[in-house]
Order: sequence, then structure tokens, then C-alpha cells
Amino acid sequence: MDYIREGDYVLFLTPRGKRYLILVKPGKRFHSSEGYVDLETLIGRRYGCRIRTNTGSLWVAAKPTLLDHALNFPRVTQIVYPKDLGYIVLLSGVRCGSRVVEGGTGAGVLTTILAYYVAPMGRVYSYDIEEKYLENAAKQLERVGLREYVELKMGDLTEGVEERDVDAFILDIPTPWLAVHTAWEALKDGGILVSISPTIEQVIETVEKLKEEGFADVSTVEILLRNLRVKRGMTRPMHLMHAHTAYITTARKAFKEQKSPNRKES
Amino acid sequence: MDYIREGDYVLFLTPRGKRYLILVKPGKRFHSSEGYVDLETLIGRRYGCRIRTNTGSLWVAAKPTLLDHALNFPRVTQIVYPKDLGYIVLLSGVRCGSRVVEGGTGAGVLTTILAYYVAPMGRVYSYDIEEKYLENAAKQLERVGLREYVELKMGDLTEGVEERDVDAFILDIPTPWLAVHTAWEALKDGGILVSISPTIEQVIETVEKLKEEGFADVSTVEILLRNLRVKRGMTRPMHLMHAHTAYITTARKAFKEQKSPNRKES
Amino acid sequence: MDYIREGDYVLFLTPRGKRYLILVKPGKRFHSSEGYVDLETLIGRRYGCRIRTNTGSLWVAAKPTLLDHALNFPRVTQIVYPKDLGYIVLLSGVRCGSRVVEGGTGAGVLTTILAYYVAPMGRVYSYDIEEKYLENAAKQLERVGLREYVELKMGDLTEGVEERDVDAFILDIPTPWLAVHTAWEALKDGGILVSISPTIEQVIETVEKLKEEGFADVSTVEILLRNLRVKRGMTRPMHLMHAHTAYITTARKAFKEQKSPNRKES
Amino acid sequence: MDYIREGDYVLFLTPRGKRYLILVKPGKRFHSSEGYVDLETLIGRRYGCRIRTNTGSLWVAAKPTLLDHALNFPRVTQIVYPKDLGYIVLLSGVRCGSRVVEGGTGAGVLTTILAYYVAPMGRVYSYDIEEKYLENAAKQLERVGLREYVELKMGDLTEGVEERDVDAFILDIPTPWLAVHTAWEALKDGGILVSISPTIEQVIETVEKLKEEGFADVSTVEILLRNLRVKRGMTRPMHLMHAHTAYITTARKAFKEQKSPNRKES
Repeated sequence: MDYIREGDYVLFLTPRGKRYLILVKPGKRFHSSEGYVDLETLIGRRYGCRIRTNTGSLWVAAKPTLLDHALNFPRVTQIVYPKDLGYIVLLSGVRCGSRVVEGGTGAGVLTTILAYYVAPMGRVYSYDIEEKYLENAAKQLERVGLREYVELKMGDLTEGVEERDVDAFILDIPTPWLAVHTAWEALKDGGILVSISPTIEQVIETVEKLKEEGFADVSTVEILLRNLRVKRGMTRPMHLMHAHTAYITTARKAFKEQKSPNRKES
Repeated sequence: MDYIREGDYVLFLTPRGKRYLILVKPGKRFHSSEGYVDLETLIGRRYGCRIRTNTGSLWVAAKPTLLDHALNFPRVTQIVYPKDLGYIVLLSGVRCGSRVVEGGTGAGVLTTILAYYVAPMGRVYSYDIEEKYLENAAKQLERVGLREYVELKMGDLTEGVEERDVDAFILDIPTPWLAVHTAWEALKDGGILVSISPTIEQVIETVEKLKEEGFADVSTVEILLRNLRVKRGMTRPMHLMHAHTAYITTARKAFKEQKSPNRKES
Repeated sequence: MDYIREGDYVLFLTPRGKRYLILVKPGKRFHSSEGYVDLETLIGRRYGCRIRTNTGSLWVAAKPTLLDHALNFPRVTQIVYPKDLGYIVLLSGVRCGSRVVEGGTGAGVLTTILAYYVAPMGRVYSYDIEEKYLENAAKQLERVGLREYVELKMGDLTEGVEERDVDAFILDIPTPWLAVHTAWEALKDGGILVSISPTIEQVIETVEKLKEEGFADVSTVEILLRNLRVKRGMTRPMHLMHAHTAYITTARKAFKEQKSPNRKES
Repeated sequence: MDYIREGDYVLFLTPRGKRYLILVKPGKRFHSSEGYVDLETLIGRRYGCRIRTNTGSLWVAAKPTLLDHALNFPRVTQIVYPKDLGYIVLLSGVRCGSRVVEGGTGAGVLTTILAYYVAPMGRVYSYDIEEKYLENAAKQLERVGLREYVELKMGDLTEGVEERDVDAFILDIPTPWLAVHTAWEALKDGGILVSISPTIEQVIETVEKLKEEGFADVSTVEILLRNLRVKRGMTRPMHLMHAHTAYITTARKAFKEQKSPNRKES
């Protein structure tokens, strides 16, 4: 049984479909267009309980998942959405113990998701050229208890990274084709590269560079997520989510053909 | 550096887009429409190397990922595809150390993916009513070194499970609405249910039951994956993948409203 | 050469992507967030000319198409969108000279589009149970010069229509399955039925009834339209259009099997 | 009542979802994997009747629509699919009496559809550089009774056309951006250009040229069509149709800004 305590976060789910990620502090009152809640009344109750606001609106006090927290980070940059995050994680092969280089850190959403998976034995090495993004990411990671699994590093992925033999290398920068060589050097044999770009021109440049560098199984996809509004007698698709989409390119580190077939590659 | 040894698997990637998951045994020759390869010649080479078949076709000998293995399992039942697998894993919150109930085991693809994430500290409790599926799954899990993280159990999820306080409960059965109550009992506070169904009627029944049982944040989505054929000057979308799609319903364990608001739920 | 005259309509296209369908009257000034235009200045200019507002914003004074007008009708009911309109027209086979029954008239968008195609030798017989919709449709059809090609009739399609041997029968009502028999009676041999419904439950009922009545080639589709933002170096997909979608069911009038195969059907 | 006569076409619809467009000739027998039909037995029966093959398979003898015929043309080139055809027709504004320039003729599918709409008072001026395509198109148009509404012309759209003041200009060639100027010259004020291209690079070139030439309301879309398999209790989406897709770009003829605002454009 999981009781809500002072200092915990709750995720309020309202009948109008609103979601509020709130820190529970005694004496505080949370206001919304659907009424207010005295946060004190939550203390001692179980996560998942239902409560009513002063106007009678019936809410659920849910336990926030890591994804809830991550999607609530300050949007200092464009973030990666769940529909893409799941695919990126799966294709990258990242799991407990993995070592993964990632950048730019940006808002830190992807960084945090990766940390969630590699913990407690793995590491995320996250690069960004902006000090402020690294600082913000540190704060968010701290808040969700994942700070220790991430090394936040100031640096430009197009110029090189220190890490070698990493399991995965994930690019979310404006010029990923300039970091393809860095990725090749950093990845272990069989390592996976994932690159996320909003425009088709970026994808074309990146894919051409990947092929040039000898990467194999280069593939680019786009994911569309459709919501259904399900209610007996009135079931219908809802509008598709997300105005901004991104193309996801994946590739496997490989070697260009050797001159004499049975020699070990350097 | 990762060398191919006798007894290892390689994933051949051919120019025509074929993929072959092959066990490397000396003396064996692998034949295809693009020529043959004497597997011996791979031994001692690095994963990711390029080799030529007797007809001169240039292949890559890639290191198979867990996903490659899983997608290669005997298709004894309809499987869940990567576009859905990633989303299911992400929304379920499953990670290292998680305890997750899943069923039916079926071909074991989802079971294996879940084991990959919860290992080494977590457990997958996978149920099926068919002995043969459990046996097959055991074999596949053994092959990819994940057998120890899964408890394969003969049983009907609609009748109940032994587990309590699990982090996630994943349903891939024909009548998921009949297992909603089981899931509610088995989940921890804040636990996540995921249900996968091919038909809209199944979704409607399941969603109505979830609401009845007090689950919150009930959502149903459908994921479409689009491949792009990227080649400078000739970039275009390819046909969409997968003839069969499934609807993915997610929900959070919650409690129906209590009579007196500040009482602890039982 | 097509000059703008007093009493004509123009469609203003602005840099911010706004579209304004305006009647040109001397002495009138059209205001917007991107500046104002003295409509008089348009008189004598050619359609397609560019003009600047007082703030310097550069607009195009385009010639409105019938579709522009139709999409500008008062939205008294949910309308059918271009992505669906095109498909409906094509599959229905409606063209110059066709006779088509349609209902409910609703906002009159589909009615108007159909009239555009059947004119000048064909007819649209449009039914609605609400007097106010018929009156509104008459006004809109008048405005775009298509009133004479439409017979607006008060009536309930589920109870029957007067017309016989029509080329197409188009249903956009809440309970289309109740009008299937009416459609069968009204259609000529080989005539086409099209039914538009927002929910899957409506589609299921309608399809089952169509099969019962002996319709052939019953098919249901859903159309998704994707906008691309095309700009050299920055090309990317935009969000998908339209929150509400509809399922489009098409079928061909046919006969149930006859007892003795070579007899003419009654 | 519409009876099948000798020399008519029928469209056979089979339980396995096959469609056969057949010419009815006495003494001929049509064979398929679902049995055979002696075509004579159809003569005198009504379109839409049901018949059984020798193996007992129950077919419908439907009346072919123009679309059925067009989709049955020899596929001498890549064709435009219904999901795109409907949108192209609608946005082009083509109707009875319209004059439309189109090219390349290719397989003639789009040519035929356009002819269907402009008849009997309008004209399609269809250009191609290949004699064989023009000859093939003439044959197909003859077969469906639309030959007289089309002027088939040998010529290169990128070099110019004779027509002026046309209502619409439709491009389905590999280098549409080279025909943009031709289109501008040929279109009437307010005329519509539609361009169909399979690759994104072609779209980018075309859109940039359209903007350069002063076209307005330049828009590019992509249409996805989803089939639903509807059967009570088992309703689900089917695979998406069509491996090849095309981008559809539309634009309105307009004028670049004039130096002195109130002068008539030349």
C-alpha cells in the first residue's frame, strides 16, 4: 500500500482531462478551473484515491510515473514525445547496465528516460553546448532521483566525445550528420545509433553520411499516434496528437569492406 | 572489440534488404538467393564486418540485438510489433527491478522484451493456458539468456493470479475485460495496466470494464509507423508497415470514490 | 482576364495564413490583425493581384473557388471536409447530368459540392427534417448560383423518398442503417450508396444492414490528410488536419441471390 | 432497369475479394480460382445480380463504373490512386465545361477521370512526349466513350502549350518545376495548378518555383487511406493501401506585386 506523504508528488487527473503534477505541502491549496483542493487532505490517503474539489468535481490523485515527471519538465527546448521515446528506447537496446552517449541534453526529457532504464548499473553521458541546459537537466534529474546515473558534460558532439565502446549513441542536435563520425568512434561493435530530426533535409544529410561511414541497416521512420475516444455507442477516433513530429533514423555500427576478407578489422 | 566465435549468432543484412539470423557453425554453408557464405570465414572477424558471398553480393555480419532474436521466434501466435512494443514498455514503466504480470505468453516476444528490461533484479510472471506455448517460450528465453528472469505459469488470467503489488499488468488475450478485476487485485497502488487488442469491440468491452472497476486515465491509442526511403534526390515515403495493427489501452490502478473522503481505502 | 468588380467576392490570403472571404463593396474597409484594406482599391484589378494593407502586409486577392465558398458556409452542423469530399464525389460517380439523393442537408456543404458537379443537366434531391437547415441551404446555394440544381425537400430519409433510379444516394445522418432500404429502392441498377459516420458503432450497424439488403462491394475507409511545410532546407510534415474524422462506407446496389439462376429479377 | 447485353462489360465481385472486369461475349467462359462462369448466362439479367460459378462460389455481376474501367487500364506507367484522384479533382475545381491541361498522359487514368467530369461541354488537353502513351490513352478513352472530350497532344509541357485561359493545369511529370512557367501562362486568372510527385525533392523544387513565379496558396499534402474490416464482433483496421504514395501540391495563379498598386496587371 502506497500512502501519500508530505513532500510527495501527486498527479491530479480531472474529469475535463486536465493533468496537474503537484507537490504535496500542508497548508497549501491547489486552484483550478474545476475547483480547489486542500493538499493536506491527501496526506495519509492511498495513491489512486478519488477526491472532490470544493465545487464537487471528482479527481483522481494518481502516483506520477517517471514519464509524467519528464513530460512536466520546463520546455526549454523542443522535447521528444512518448510515441517516439518508446521506439527510440526499444531500438537503441538500452537497458539496465547500458552505457549510452546522448546529446544535446536540451530539456533533459530523453536524458531522464534513458537514465531510468540504465539505472542502477549503467550510465548516460549527456552532452550539450549550453551551460543553462546542463544546469536545468541536473535539477530535473535530481528531482526524480536519477542524477547519479547521468554524467552531464559540456561539449559539442560534432567535435568528439571521450567515451568508447558505448552501447548506444543518441543524437538530437540540429546537425547530426556532423556527429556521425564521432558516433562511429564511440560505439562498441554492434552498437546502435539513433538520430532524431524534424526536417527531411536533416534526415537526408544524416543518412548519406551514415552510409558513407559504413553504418549498416540505416532506416528512417516516422511514428503517428492515434487516440480513440472509446465510449459504448459513441466510439470514434480523436484527432491525431502532436503538431510537431520528428523522423527517427537508426543504424548499426559496421565496417566498410576490408581488402583481404579474412583479416581482422583494425 | 567483439569477435564472432563458433556458437555465436550473426544477423546477415543483404543488399536486397533480407535479414537472416544464423548460428555460426564450422563446416556449415548458408545459402540464399544472393549467394552463399561459408560460416567458418566469419570466425575471428568483428561484428559489423562486411563479407561477400560467392556471387559477390556484399553483406554485413551484424551482431543480433535482443529485438532481432525476439522477432525471429517461431510465430506460434500473432506477435506484438516493435512500433507497439516500444510504447507498451514505456507506458508500463517497466524497468530494472520491476515485477510484471503478463499474459498470454503466446509466442513469447513480449515476454522476452519485458524480461530484457526487468533483468537482473526484476521478474516477469507470464501466464498462458496452453502448455505448448509455455514450453516454446521457455526454449526461446533460454536461447537468449533470459530464462531466469521469467516465471512461466500455466493459468488463466481471467481467473486470478497469485502475484500481488506488481508494478505492471500486461494483457494480450482475446477477452481482456474478463481479466480486469484480476489485474486490479494484482497491481500495486499506482500500478499500470496495458491491454492489447486487434478489434474495436474488444477495446470497447475492456474500456467499459476498466472504468467500472475504478481504473483511472484510461486511454486507447493506435500507432502507425511510416518508413521513409531516403536517398538523395529520390527521397519518398515507403508503404506503411504491418498488415495487422492492434489497439493499445493503458490505465492506472485507482480506487472508486470512498463514502467519507478522509478515510484510508481498505 | 478576370477583373474584380463591385459585388464580387474575393478570398484574401495573408502571410500569416489567414483566409478571408469578403464581398467587395465600395466605401467598405476590411480590418484584420494584419492591417486593413479599402475594398474599393480592388475594383478594376485582376483576380490574383497582390495588395498591401496599411501596415504593409502583402496579401493576395484570390478568386474564390466553389470549395472556398462552401467551406465558408455557416457551420450550422458538422461539415464534411475536403479530404473526404473528394473521395465521396469520386466513388459516387456523380457527374454532369447525374441524379443524386442526399441527406441530411445540414450545413449544405456536401449538397453544394454535389450540385457543382451535376450541373447543369443533373439534380440533387436533398432531404432534411429541419426546416431551418433547408432554408439556410437555399440561401447558400443561391449565393453561389447553384440553387436551381437542387430540390430541397423536408423529409426523413429513413421513411422513404420519392425518387427512383437515382445514380447515387448519399447518407450523412445519425442513423444511416435505417435508411438503407430506402436507398436500395431509390437507386438505379448499379447505383452507388455512400454513407458518412463519425462513430464505429454507426459503421458496424450500417455495414451489417447493407449486407442484409443485398448491397455488394461494401467497403469502409478512413482518410487521413497530412500537410507538409515545404521550404528549402526546412521541409517537414505539419500536424495532421481535422480533429473530427468520419468513416466513409460505400456500396453498390445489388440483388440477393435468385432461386432459379436465369430468371430476371423483379 | 439495366440489363446486361452482349458486348457490355461486367465487373465480377467474388467472395475472396477478387474483381474481374470482363467483356460479355456469347460462347465465352470466364475461368478463375473460384470456378468458371459461362458469360452467356448473364445476358438478359440485371446488373447487380448474383450468380454461382460451377464450384458454387457466389459472385455479383456489377455494373462497372468509370473508375473501375480506369483502374483496369494497362499500367504502362505508375497511376494515380483513387485516394489522390478525388482530392485532385476537388481541388482543381474541374467540372462540366471546364478546360483543363494535363500531362503526362501516361497510362491515361487521370486523363480519363478528368474527361468524365468535364464532359460534355469541356475539354481535356493531354500532353505526353511518348507516342505510345498517347496511342494507348486514345484506345482506352475510346473504350469508355470519352475520346471526344480529350485532345491528345504530343508535346513537352516544360516547353509550352498552346492553350490559354484554362481552368486548371495538372502536372504528373518527373520535372514539374520546369513546367511551372508554362502553367502560369496557360491558366486563366484564378486558375488552379495541381502537381503530383512521388519524391520530396521534386516537391521542394516545385514549391520553390511556384513561389518564385508568384503563385499563391501553395500547399502540399499527402493522403493516407485506411481500410476497416467491418464485421460485428470482429471489427478492425486493415492494412493501409498502396505501397507508393505521392505528394499533391496545389496552387492558385496569382501576380507578383505591382509597382504602383492601382494599375491593372498586364
